[in-house]
Amino acid sequence: MTRESQLAELKQRLQEIDDLRRAGAVLGWDQATYMPPGGAQARGRQLALLSRLEHDRLTDPGVGRLLDSLAPWAEAQGADSDAAALVRVTRRDYERATRVPSAFVHRLSDHTATTYHVWQRARPDNDFAAVRPLLETTVELSREFAAFHPGYAHPFDALIDIAEDGMTVAAVRSLFAELRAGLVPLIEAIRARPLADDGCLTGDFPESAQQVFGEAVIRAFGYDYARGRQDKTAHPFMTKLGRGDVRITTRYCSDRLPEGLFATLHEAGHAIYEQGIDDALDGTPLFSGTTAGVHESQSRLWENLVGRSLPFWRHWYAPLRAAFPGALDGVDVETFYRAINKVMPSMIRTEADEVTYNLHVMLRFDLELALLDGTLAVADLPEAWRARIHSDLGVAPTDDRDGALQDVHWYGGIVGGAFQSYTLGNIMSAQFFAAAQRDLDDLDGQIGAGKFAPLRGWLTTRIYRHGRKFTASEIVQRVTGGPLSIAPYVAYLNTKYGALYGL
Amino acid sequence: MTRESQLAELKQRLQEIDDLRRAGAVLGWDQATYMPPGGAQARGRQLALLSRLEHDRLTDPGVGRLLDSLAPWAEAQGADSDAAALVRVTRRDYERATRVPSAFVHRLSDHTATTYHVWQRARPDNDFAAVRPLLETTVELSREFAAFHPGYAHPFDALIDIAEDGMTVAAVRSLFAELRAGLVPLIEAIRARPLADDGCLTGDFPESAQQVFGEAVIRAFGYDYARGRQDKTAHPFMTKLGRGDVRITTRYCSDRLPEGLFATLHEAGHAIYEQGIDDALDGTPLFSGTTAGVHESQSRLWENLVGRSLPFWRHWYAPLRAAFPGALDGVDVETFYRAINKVMPSMIRTEADEVTYNLHVMLRFDLELALLDGTLAVADLPEAWRARIHSDLGVAPTDDRDGALQDVHWYGGIVGGAFQSYTLGNIMSAQFFAAAQRDLDDLDGQIGAGKFAPLRGWLTTRIYRHGRKFTASEIVQRVTGGPLSIAPYVAYLNTKYGALYGL
Repeated sequence: MTRESQLAELKQRLQEIDDLRRAGAVLGWDQATYMPPGGAQARGRQLALLSRLEHDRLTDPGVGRLLDSLAPWAEAQGADSDAAALVRVTRRDYERATRVPSAFVHRLSDHTATTYHVWQRARPDNDFAAVRPLLETTVELSREFAAFHPGYAHPFDALIDIAEDGMTVAAVRSLFAELRAGLVPLIEAIRARPLADDGCLTGDFPESAQQVFGEAVIRAFGYDYARGRQDKTAHPFMTKLGRGDVRITTRYCSDRLPEGLFATLHEAGHAIYEQGIDDALDGTPLFSGTTAGVHESQSRLWENLVGRSLPFWRHWYAPLRAAFPGALDGVDVETFYRAINKVMPSMIRTEADEVTYNLHVMLRFDLELALLDGTLAVADLPEAWRARIHSDLGVAPTDDRDGALQDVHWYGGIVGGAFQSYTLGNIMSAQFFAAAQRDLDDLDGQIGAGKFAPLRGWLTTRIYRHGRKFTASEIVQRVTGGPLSIAPYVAYLNTKYGALYGL
Repeated sequence: MTRESQLAELKQRLQEIDDLRRAGAVLGWDQATYMPPGGAQARGRQLALLSRLEHDRLTDPGVGRLLDSLAPWAEAQGADSDAAALVRVTRRDYERATRVPSAFVHRLSDHTATTYHVWQRARPDNDFAAVRPLLETTVELSREFAAFHPGYAHPFDALIDIAEDGMTVAAVRSLFAELRAGLVPLIEAIRARPLADDGCLTGDFPESAQQVFGEAVIRAFGYDYARGRQDKTAHPFMTKLGRGDVRITTRYCSDRLPEGLFATLHEAGHAIYEQGIDDALDGTPLFSGTTAGVHESQSRLWENLVGRSLPFWRHWYAPLRAAFPGALDGVDVETFYRAINKVMPSMIRTEADEVTYNLHVMLRFDLELALLDGTLAVADLPEAWRARIHSDLGVAPTDDRDGALQDVHWYGGIVGGAFQSYTLGNIMSAQFFAAAQRDLDDLDGQIGAGKFAPLRGWLTTRIYRHGRKFTASEIVQRVTGGPLSIAPYVAYLNTKYGALYGL
């Protein structure tokens, strides 16, 4: 076999794997948006089949042989070449997939489906007891899963590494400790000041007008509706159904503005990233955003560093008022800006302000490591949650609905490896934005004039187009010239909230 | 291997084949409803992959061996048993699929995709020349396809047989000749009478009100929205995405009532059939409606024999007027009934009235056979169409848009085997309805009281629940006690239109 024919065969196999994954994404999107209740059972089986076919193809020994054979040639193209990245990233996916026996994959996926189903009722019912035995099994399975990937310094490094290539428990712990030291004094200082008034965000905000306004903003960001669309779901998400088809979903409250609006900007951030990947990578594992953290850096950048900034609203506040006649009468842009940036410790992570948000993540990260290493029993999780959120944020949930049952992650997958990415994303969002401010001429002025093309162009060139070619740390190094650092993020928060709260 | 394990293995294979087919249906539904333009290319590839995986699994020699091995036991269960039907119908699908080489399937599917793409522009552009060479290839491929199925009396019997198990060119020709002899005098007699006035069907009929009214009617028919949904598409269709998920689509004109309303009733008829199949057949080839003709008999029964009847409107006309305030002022129910049953020869099959509709089908059936046997060249098709529709219906299309380019069938698949089913459906709809009138107590009275449960229950017991267990001719025999016959259909048309036109 010539190298060309080997490469062609590898790409053909990868294309089929990708087509199966995206077909699954279509089924998943439909399940979340429009599927009637009666379709649930068959849909679960269809999704499991597509997932199994994809896994079978990825773990075929023929893939390993092609990768072995192509590796020397690919490396000779240079580490930054598409060929080297293709072989490197496919090898990573292949190794990860082959380490986990198919029987385990099925067991985990059946268990997860059951747990998710039970959690969907247990959360509104505030019934932790209903999920407790299931979550105990999930913890066991998560340990087993980690054990399929030996050779890490910490037994649960594998879980972090899968989400964040190269990240470790120790590195996250160290970053989080440093960040906590930066956040706590800021939170204390804000607490000593009067609460911001966000009354203007409650009122008459019809869904259809929210949809129209949100669409106008994210079109201006550069989200391309010819290659995407927006629908409503119970939980907002972004999904890629194929090249040229990257969709987002949103949830609206007709009497509250921020939830729907910022969810729209957030998911659009994820989608603009996916839409910006070089089409030349289509059909390969490179044709996705890289780590979960880098993905989150883009949703948070567009949602927060752009969408909750004063320059942004200097341009968009007039269109917003026009979109909701009467709702914001007598509210000036500064008042509105203070309202959407109100800092107040609360119980729900997804509704938390920028400053307290990361404490929610740290709580989850620490609790899940304690569950995994056995120092915390599942039965004690609700109480541990309450104690920790009280000590960290001074609030105490009266029920598990807003406590240990709050997030889907532990009930829709394994325990471990997911939450840290939200805070890593926040940290990177500020690092990337600071680099953009350095590289671009008057970025704040551009945003204040409603012009996003320079920022999006810069992000596309520096980050988006590469897909998975580079890991998070490689991207950070290339874009900022240095390693991951909390300094720009802490500086951003101190500057923004120092001004807002007169600190 | 025990018989039980063989049966279990067969069912497992069939379940996977069915899951792949339904996953493809999800992708197809999304493609027609919500997919953004950018998604088209990847979606085509995903659909082709799922279709190939399904075909590979169905034609696996292991399926043939299991069928061979299970046949004696299945037959011993009795011809009407689920087991016998399962082996019989799977054998039919297996034989048909294995006769066609994979390379031919790919070639045909690539050609069809290209042709469909070109036709989508050629039709609005009235550009038959653009599709002519492609259609010539389609005719060639259709002959090749038929030739993979030798042993029939007529070379194109295979094409009819695939749609209508057991039907032949000769049988269809004979039925159509007989039907034509019944229709022509009726059309002549109606032509001698004044045209009905259907002006009341044009006016202010907002889409949303059409949707609400249509939904109310088909819910009353028994279409179950917990196991289905309705969306808008350019061309209405019904599709089954899995057990408990049977969807329909509709197209509305906001200034015309009948198109959207009757398309809704028509597609609901197809869907009620699929929703009525016994869940015990799920995951097997039996879990679909049987032939295309029987399927059409149900769409036409609910659309025409119920939905265009006077008893139906005696109940629904008041709700209709309430749904469109002012639009039908001064129009009494008899006037409305005459309007929706106006007979007028026209150029568009899908908009034709019940009486002239079948002449459209006969025209297509005869022309496609002439294309296949070479007595008509593709280049001469537009002229042949014009000549025939003028001689049959006294109308002449001024362009090919409403002539040889009118229907998607020849441009989205092979030539031959599709059109006859529309008329077979009409014939059977009247046969089945007459049997229901015989079996049920005061069916017209029930319909006039807005009660459809007795009719739907009767159809479910007699037809729907069996899925593909019985062929069309077996169903007709079981339900009516005799063979397929045009007499009830001609009697229905003569009675209804005789009264309407005072003949």
